[in-house]
Amino acid sequence: MAQRTLLNQLIEALRCLPGVGPKSAQRIAFHLLERDREGGSRLARVMAEAMTRIGRCRRCRTLSEHELCGLCANPNRDPGLLCVVEQPSEIVAIEQATDYRGQYFVLGGRLSPLDGIGPEDLGLGLLEERLREGLVSEVILAISPTVEGSVTAQYIAECAAQGNVKVTRIAHGVPLGGELEYVDGGTLALAFTGRRAL
Amino acid sequence: MAQRTLLNQLIEALRCLPGVGPKSAQRIAFHLLERDREGGSRLARVMAEAMTRIGRCRRCRTLSEHELCGLCANPNRDPGLLCVVEQPSEIVAIEQATDYRGQYFVLGGRLSPLDGIGPEDLGLGLLEERLREGLVSEVILAISPTVEGSVTAQYIAECAAQGNVKVTRIAHGVPLGGELEYVDGGTLALAFTGRRAL
Repeated sequence: MAQRTLLNQLIEALRCLPGVGPKSAQRIAFHLLERDREGGSRLARVMAEAMTRIGRCRRCRTLSEHELCGLCANPNRDPGLLCVVEQPSEIVAIEQATDYRGQYFVLGGRLSPLDGIGPEDLGLGLLEERLREGLVSEVILAISPTVEGSVTAQYIAECAAQGNVKVTRIAHGVPLGGELEYVDGGTLALAFTGRRAL
Repeated sequence: MAQRTLLNQLIEALRCLPGVGPKSAQRIAFHLLERDREGGSRLARVMAEAMTRIGRCRRCRTLSEHELCGLCANPNRDPGLLCVVEQPSEIVAIEQATDYRGQYFVLGGRLSPLDGIGPEDLGLGLLEERLREGLVSEVILAISPTVEGSVTAQYIAECAAQGNVKVTRIAHGVPLGGELEYVDGGTLALAFTGRRAL
């Protein structure tokens, strides 16, 4: 079989999907070609458009095809609350699970000088500007409790302190239904240091 | 968040991939947008082309963007051997695992009158024509040993008998490394009825 048939190109291109190896790519290609060409064509169309048109919201840096994302443009969201997350996907999780009605700010990573990730890569200048606007009364940090995450949180806390903005951090500890004996040591240690009076 | 953002459309469209639910679709969308836009754009381009341009080989009915697929057009393949398979993906598996150098014919399914799948749906007329050409000396049936598969095999065997073409069927039995106690009953029964003298 010639190496560069369109079918082989499709199988090769499908490998860019996360977790898709040669076998899965082949299975997906045959599935689309034999059972769902319409879905495949629609996916191709939407994907092409999404890859070129989706950029970042100029206010919160989340993924959006508009200059201002739906959340930033929504007048019903409380401008006094600002939740800082690492990734856009975390906004989706928070929106689905909580009744948080404030706004967001997406860092896109954590401070990591060793990897060359500095404040400007995380848009921290933009965040400082936002805090200086004076609208935000509380910054809620939803950043992972790793070393880099803590450094990042510390950095933001200092910026906020200068503007007299209250800073909180979401609780880290044993998850709901988590059995103590199966929870990892780091989480358990966090749960102890973060214990609260009843 | 507005329901019809481009991001939501992408997540929705990704659901056409086999085995991809809402969570995976979201994960794939964010992965492509944040880490591999180039791969996503290439995939979109190739997929759009594949969905419209890939048709069926007019000789063996496998998926191909040309009128004659690479295998049928290859003069080095033995025209005397014809392997009949159910799906195009099975050709790939046979090509990778065996040293079979003959040609193929793809049914696209099995005879199943109850589901309205008759000889014309499987291209059996085209297969009969092919056998009448007189080039094929042996038909190798690589059809699954289900009830419908056996009926289909029987039908083809009768056509071949009329043209004095030898018909064989690939062996079904206990797989290499398969432990007898874990092999399903049907396979084990097949292995017994299909036993051969040493």
